[in-house]
Amino acid sequence: MSAWVLPDHIADVLPSEARHIEELRRELLDTARGYGYELVMPPLLEHLESLLTGTGEALDLLTFKLVDQLSGRMMGLRADTTPQVARIDAHLLNRQGVARLCYCGPVAHTRPDRAYATREPLQFGAELYGHGGLEADFEVLLLALDCLSAAQLSDLTVDLSDARIVQALLADSALAPAELVRIHAALTTKDAGELAALTASLPAVDREGLQALLQLYGDASVLDDAERMLPDRPALRHALAELRRCAALLGGRASVRVDLADLRGYAYYSGVRFSIYTEHGDALVRGGRYDEVGAVFGRKRPAVGFSLDLKQLVAAVPPRPLRAAIRAPWGEDGALRSAIAALRRGGETVVCALPGHESEIDEFHCDRVLMHKGGEWVVQAI
Amino acid sequence: MSAWVLPDHIADVLPSEARHIEELRRELLDTARGYGYELVMPPLLEHLESLLTGTGEALDLLTFKLVDQLSGRMMGLRADTTPQVARIDAHLLNRQGVARLCYCGPVAHTRPDRAYATREPLQFGAELYGHGGLEADFEVLLLALDCLSAAQLSDLTVDLSDARIVQALLADSALAPAELVRIHAALTTKDAGELAALTASLPAVDREGLQALLQLYGDASVLDDAERMLPDRPALRHALAELRRCAALLGGRASVRVDLADLRGYAYYSGVRFSIYTEHGDALVRGGRYDEVGAVFGRKRPAVGFSLDLKQLVAAVPPRPLRAAIRAPWGEDGALRSAIAALRRGGETVVCALPGHESEIDEFHCDRVLMHKGGEWVVQAI
Repeated sequence: MSAWVLPDHIADVLPSEARHIEELRRELLDTARGYGYELVMPPLLEHLESLLTGTGEALDLLTFKLVDQLSGRMMGLRADTTPQVARIDAHLLNRQGVARLCYCGPVAHTRPDRAYATREPLQFGAELYGHGGLEADFEVLLLALDCLSAAQLSDLTVDLSDARIVQALLADSALAPAELVRIHAALTTKDAGELAALTASLPAVDREGLQALLQLYGDASVLDDAERMLPDRPALRHALAELRRCAALLGGRASVRVDLADLRGYAYYSGVRFSIYTEHGDALVRGGRYDEVGAVFGRKRPAVGFSLDLKQLVAAVPPRPLRAAIRAPWGEDGALRSAIAALRRGGETVVCALPGHESEIDEFHCDRVLMHKGGEWVVQAI
Repeated sequence: MSAWVLPDHIADVLPSEARHIEELRRELLDTARGYGYELVMPPLLEHLESLLTGTGEALDLLTFKLVDQLSGRMMGLRADTTPQVARIDAHLLNRQGVARLCYCGPVAHTRPDRAYATREPLQFGAELYGHGGLEADFEVLLLALDCLSAAQLSDLTVDLSDARIVQALLADSALAPAELVRIHAALTTKDAGELAALTASLPAVDREGLQALLQLYGDASVLDDAERMLPDRPALRHALAELRRCAALLGGRASVRVDLADLRGYAYYSGVRFSIYTEHGDALVRGGRYDEVGAVFGRKRPAVGFSLDLKQLVAAVPPRPLRAAIRAPWGEDGALRSAIAALRRGGETVVCALPGHESEIDEFHCDRVLMHKGGEWVVQAI
């Protein structure tokens, strides 16, 4: 096999796309900074138990493992940044109050998530620690929307769900973990027959509530149906009221869809969960509340956040024109060097034609040229 | 062991340093862009033979290996980005003319380079392909200096060396590779006795030339000594003339030191080689000409470039003050949300105090507050 063949689902990002990703990266980080989110850079490699504790088997199977020759211990190449940021909040910062953190860097997956997905997403995310109220969920949701607006996306749809609803309906059941997994699977695939069989031993009210979830998806009016169809328990009412406030907050900013049987990441989320979509394609952003995430690092405190893949985002946003550049001759003459340096300081791209390459068409689409005219170096349109 | 302990020589980058690294990252990328260098983003993981071909054993030992479960083949976690960029130039872009490429991303090393080095440098670099003339070396050297100036470093020293000088002195010797390795080691450690023993079989002119190299270090006047002390061969004269032009180019921009016995990366470089230092510490930048680098990808063409580690750079530059922020109350009131959004659009950081956290001192050093006054939201100094 040729030395230049890359592994499946791994690709180089070439100049036009890399430039666009870099622009988006800055816009997202600046947007998060505008909200007071501080950048952190966790490492690519950590001891496996730090990366995987409490996050469930799915992440384990996605994580590349390797041996640290310095210690002989197993390390993992991070497949998700959230557990690392939770560790930083819990152990390194250990602030009493609210901590707002953001990050942007590559993660690696042993297997692609979807048919055409990369195994090396460039993950951007933001997390808010230390506030259990819905205001923190709101802030994170608005930040996610502002990030997509900064990326010039419009016509957004927010899918809302809540991990507490299924939890509340199964709270009194004494089902074995394996049975719970099967119930979750039946809810996810909306398989009414399988769900009925699996929940036959539950009290009628819970059984009917779980069956009702299969119909409880659609626009925000689903929340009215849920009030009517689900049992009257404080935990359920509380979750539905929070979803209603989220839907109201979003009115005008994005279309709202609700799917109360949606259980993606259920091992992880502990409250409101959201995904953001454009007109076509997969969810661009996933987020929500995961209050347990820092527990393994000795600090279980409220946490809410979201993440997205910049490589997926760049494919969803309109391409941007390349800023035109200035072509200059090569030379060691001081006046020429100064003229070029001044243009570059002013933000221009100045490409020097190296000797022998004067007639090359370059990739920067130079629309001006630096010329010697009347004893001075001047910029002229081509 | 606790879940929050990181492997040796691996660390998180916390907010104040991460912010500074991000600022430097943008300045370096913008500086490279000003010269017409296009950003590329090669993957973290590649087939091992793509990462290691032609780069010598040193990089092999630095590279973490893992199995690709999709193919069963060995992959490496990149320890250096240059071979990847050479692959992109050779295979993906395959331009006839000059290609200017830059990159910025993490690399991982199985072992630290130095006592306190990280095993996860954040590597920034720039490479110019397709021009064999000294003008390309100049451009890359000036770009490296401009990058360090953009990072607000001054009092720079450039160490110059040239891979062709030792090559020329050993060109006629029929020494075995293992003997060459020992000669290189004796030159690097400036061990005159060992060098004399190893070169006893060589013609006197080569033997004496190699011995002379041990004294040929110091300021640019070393180049005059070299003209006198080294044999009069075209390849040697040519290399010395190029070093002389480099030293002249740098006059005024940086102090120049020359060390003709310096052989770091000799398996890699094929011409002028440079390192850039500040007053204290290790080299911040290493670069030079390595015309062989693309050969393994089917396209051997001239190449010159440099790289640096942003984590090392940030420790060498003066710290920067944090931009002060504005504190705002939490609220869903439309006028408040609009006032906050307008401030953020204007580049301000606005931190909303979440309910119950109004008295917290945050990390953003808010020097102003958004207050409701006379029916309007106004910013006031604290």
